[in-house]
This record gives sequence, C-alpha cells and structure tokens, in this order.
Amino acid sequence: MKAIKVIEPFKVEIVDVPKPTIQNPDDVIVRITSGGICGSDIGIYNGTNSLATYPRLIGHEFGGIVTEIGADVTNVKVGDKVAVDPVVSCGHCYACRIGRHNVCRDLEVMGVHRDGGFSEFVSAPAQNVHKFHKDFDESYLGLVEPFTIGVEINNRAQVTKGDKVLIMGSGPIGIAAMQVAKRNGAEVIMTDLVKERLDKALSMGADEVVLVSEENLEDRLLKFTDGEGIPVVVDTVCIPSSFEQSVQLACPAGRIVCIGLKDAPSQITMADITKKELTIVGSRLNNNCFDEVIAGFEDGSLHPEDLMTKAYNYKDIMDALTMIKEHPQDVLKIVLKFED
Amino acid sequence: MKAIKVIEPFKVEIVDVPKPTIQNPDDVIVRITSGGICGSDIGIYNGTNSLATYPRLIGHEFGGIVTEIGADVTNVKVGDKVAVDPVVSCGHCYACRIGRHNVCRDLEVMGVHRDGGFSEFVSAPAQNVHKFHKDFDESYLGLVEPFTIGVEINNRAQVTKGDKVLIMGSGPIGIAAMQVAKRNGAEVIMTDLVKERLDKALSMGADEVVLVSEENLEDRLLKFTDGEGIPVVVDTVCIPSSFEQSVQLACPAGRIVCIGLKDAPSQITMADITKKELTIVGSRLNNNCFDEVIAGFEDGSLHPEDLMTKAYNYKDIMDALTMIKEHPQDVLKIVLKFED
Repeated sequence: MKAIKVIEPFKVEIVDVPKPTIQNPDDVIVRITSGGICGSDIGIYNGTNSLATYPRLIGHEFGGIVTEIGADVTNVKVGDKVAVDPVVSCGHCYACRIGRHNVCRDLEVMGVHRDGGFSEFVSAPAQNVHKFHKDFDESYLGLVEPFTIGVEINNRAQVTKGDKVLIMGSGPIGIAAMQVAKRNGAEVIMTDLVKERLDKALSMGADEVVLVSEENLEDRLLKFTDGEGIPVVVDTVCIPSSFEQSVQLACPAGRIVCIGLKDAPSQITMADITKKELTIVGSRLNNNCFDEVIAGFEDGSLHPEDLMTKAYNYKDIMDALTMIKEHPQDVLKIVLKFED
Repeated sequence: MKAIKVIEPFKVEIVDVPKPTIQNPDDVIVRITSGGICGSDIGIYNGTNSLATYPRLIGHEFGGIVTEIGADVTNVKVGDKVAVDPVVSCGHCYACRIGRHNVCRDLEVMGVHRDGGFSEFVSAPAQNVHKFHKDFDESYLGLVEPFTIGVEINNRAQVTKGDKVLIMGSGPIGIAAMQVAKRNGAEVIMTDLVKERLDKALSMGADEVVLVSEENLEDRLLKFTDGEGIPVVVDTVCIPSSFEQSVQLACPAGRIVCIGLKDAPSQITMADITKKELTIVGSRLNNNCFDEVIAGFEDGSLHPEDLMTKAYNYKDIMDALTMIKEHPQDVLKIVLKFED
C-alpha cells in the first residue's frame, strides 16, 4: 500500500509499505479516507518538531472505514466509518492511573513517535477507534482529532454554560476550541492580527472578535463582561508575551489554558496567581474526547466543513505543503484524501 | 473594651474602643478568647503589607465564645465556642457567583481591609461564625483560620487518598497543609533549610523530610515516588526560584499550588506546562473551610497544639512581636490570649 513518509527534514515521499494485518485480537484495520495536516506535521517536515524521529510515516489526524477486526473487537464492525485516536499510552504510570493517559510517561502519538495515519490502511487498537453513528462525508473523518484538541482545552478550563471565554488567536485550534465552547453554552470573544481570519471566526460562530492591532483588548473584554474581566483565557498564540498577557487579563477565579510547546520562558509573577486564585492549566492532545466530537459533528454543533480550507489527493502532498507554506493566513486545515 | 491597634507602621497600641453591639439581625457578638499572629499581621506592623490601610485594629485569626446573637441567627447560640472566618465578600461578582467568594472583587478581610479580631469583643455576620461541637481548649479557638489555609491549599490541589505531596517549606502554613493532606489520606514529604524545623515536621506527622541544603531534592522525590516524580507540589517558600523549581519537579498531570504574594517574576516556560499538562493554582485565604478544620480539631486529625509555639496575654503584644522578630526559626505560631 502507499503511505506518506518523511525520510528526513525537507524530504517527503510516497512510499510502498506492507499493508497492516491483524496481529492482536483487539486490532482494527481501517482503510483511510481522509487525514488533516497539522502544524506539528509541518514541524516534522521542517525538522523543527523536537519529539519526532526519522524516517517517519506521518499523520495523526485520520479516519476512514473499518475493513477488518480482531477476534475480541466489539466496539466497531467492518464497514463502520471511524476516526482514530492517535494517543497510545502505557496504562500503568501515575498519569494513566488517574485517567490522564494523554500525558502518559511513555506516551506515543501515531504519526509522531510511531508510524501514523497518512497511509491507505492503518492498524490501531480497538480502544483508539471511534465510530460514527450516521453516514458522514468521508472527507471529514480525518478532522475529528483537531476538534478533540478543542474539547480537551474546554475540559481543562471547565468551560460550561454561561461562561465567557477569550480565545487568543483564530487559527484552526482557536476555531475548534471556539465551536466546542459554543457547544458547551459559553460566549466566545476571539482575537487575531488578521481581519480576514476574524471575519471567518465570526461566520463560524464567534460572538465577538477583536483586531488586536487596532483595538485595546482589555477595554473590549471589560465591555464583553460588563466590567467583570474575563474568566477563561485560551492562549493559542503561544508566545511568551501572550502567556504573560493571559495572566494579566484573567479575572479573579479565572482559568487560563496553555497549549504552547515553545521553550522560551515567560515572566510570571506568583502574586498574580495567588491574589486572583487563578488556575493555569496545560492542555495536550486529547483525553478520550473523540466520541464527544463525533456527537458534535453528527448533531451539527461542530463544523468540520468550516475547518477544511481545501482538499488534496494524498499523492499531491508536496502541493499541499506548498499551499500551507505560501498562504499561511488563508489556511485553516488542509485535508488529504486517500483515493486513487 | 480593649483592642490592639496598629496606628501606623512600627506603632502598635492597646486602645479603648466601643464594644460592638447587634446592628443587624444576623450579627453575632463574640467574646474573643484567643488569636493567632500571622505573617501578614507582621507585614501590617512593618508596613510591608500592601493591602493594609492605617490605622487598623489587626487580627484575622481569632475565636471565642458567643455572648449575643441577632434575631435571625440560628447557627450558633449564646455560650457556643466558635471560630470566626475573616473573609467578607459581596455575593454578587463573578467569583462569588461561582462559589469562590474568597477572591471576591470587593473582598474585605477582617484585620486587613476592615477592623479585625484582636479585641475583647467582635461583631461578625452569622455566616462567618463557625461552631465547635465539643468543649475545646479556649487557647486554640483562634487557630482554626491558619488550618483553613491548609484546607484551601489541599482543596485547590485536589489532594486525595494515596496522593504523594511535596510541601516546600516547614513553616506554619506548610505544617497546617501537611496535617490536612495527611487527614486526606496523602503521603507528605517536606523540605526546609533548618534541621530543627524538619525534626518538628516529622514529629507532627510528615512522612519524610529533606534538608535541601544537604540533599538532592529531585533524587529524594524519585525515591519517594518509586521513580514517577511528584504529583503535587505546594510551594510555601514563595520565592521566584521555588515557583520555577515546582514547575520542573511536578510529574505529568501534576498540580502545583502557589500562595506567594511577592511581586517578583519567575521564569516559567509554557512548554513545561503543556507537555506535562500541569495544573498550577493559586490558593488564597479560605473558601468555606472552617467547618472542616473544626471537625479535624475535634476528631484529632489536626493539631493546633503542634502549631502553637507560645501564648502571650494580648497586652504583651510587643513581647510577642519581639519574640517573632528575634526567633523567626523557632516560632510556628504565637497565640494571644484575651483575658485580664
């Protein structure tokens, strides 16, 4: 079968690899219909993803149709449309024992630490395979995972009905987090430096937007919250100053979500955390969020069609990477379709 | 009646002030039997507490015996031994609405923002007055509040049975937090720079102690956790480097509690928070923790006698302040007794 392999930084090829077969009774074989290209895939291609090793079959956003199941598999059957959770954990370490397997000590993410899903077929443990209950456009089966990032962010910040949420940055993660927050009953204000992205954010469900190059964010937040200050800040900008700003903006009893993987330090003053009794949480990957996203796709509260900017045949991976490189502001999510 | 007043920094007097009377139907008048001197009282005396205004009747750790109640009061009766929660909140702001009144936007702490409890009598709203159910040594009625700081820390870190907890610093807050964590079923390792304080910590219930001037903390934590790393870090040292160290020490899915009020920034890297999906929380004052502490005093799981280093008559406030100034390492808590 064909698969997309990053041989080394800046060298990507369509390669022939053996088609996976059932090795364990809980294995599921999925014929991939679509995958989404993530910033971290670009990082593997560029050589800037410190977690990746080479060569690597990439892709951690993927879904498709079940073609074969092991003897013990009961959650899916042949022919089911599914999305595959790329998070593989040990089940024994402290994080796994308390139900936080997405930060397992021996965490492996398909497409990063082990081979991934940009292939014609993939084998995955049954517990990683999540089923759609309605017939659903095959192009979007690979877009469950980016929305799980949004669910994890919302879960970590305990966003509930009536909350007011600031999402800094209107890229794909910001949009996914916004739609999940709206699904949870929150009101969302989003920021960006690019007016066109804010227009898109509004059309995709944001309640308000702030062009931070032209407007004072703090003033807008006070208006948005009737003078109370913002209780939830999601920082998808992820630069040292955006984290610092989050701590300043959050109101007493506020929650701040970090998703950044940059190694540059921010200047954070403990008095700010103590006085407001803030809760600052990291959010990484997803912790059993696939079924919630599938439910959101099926009930119409989450919109993969909003996230998908353009689809390419997987064989045109270089064109897709070029599109992302040359038009970063225009792209939310590029989808790869796995068809002849 | 007599009360302890800080007229201005470094000027404290025993003054005559009017005895409080019932003004509202939910008022409770308490004859104070004992109060505890806190670091923040010292800060008001020294002029280093940025929240305080002068002149001020100080004291936010206090308890005594009910002498009079308003017409609507049902939770206590005359003669009850009680401790008084000094946290007064508006009930309407965002923090109050979500049940986090200890970070109310218009927060007032008795003894800091408004007059406090180092007086012969105090008036407090009934909801701030918490009753002992057993006869209890009057010297300790004023020591409920410092243990509520320990309960709040444990609640914010969600410390539960089987958790392993590092408490950095073996001062009064560290000891109170340790005894609460032990009450919650956790195992606790404590640090300090002074061996005698660690010996005390062990005798008061700590499972293990680390003299950080002589031992490598990280190595000891790996031993303490069978190589997993520490899931809960409570930083009572509260200097920029201790916060930085907390973020490094915490294991994946770990929780870190900040109680510092210093304005100096720490260098915190968002990648450390994201990769381990840490939860960093501030803990300030207490949020309805008085009844839990009284239960702990009464069932013998919390030990005010451990915290009390020495008792003084309130008229000897200058001697008490001198003791704290001259023997900071020997003092956990100085108690003031309000008797003739």
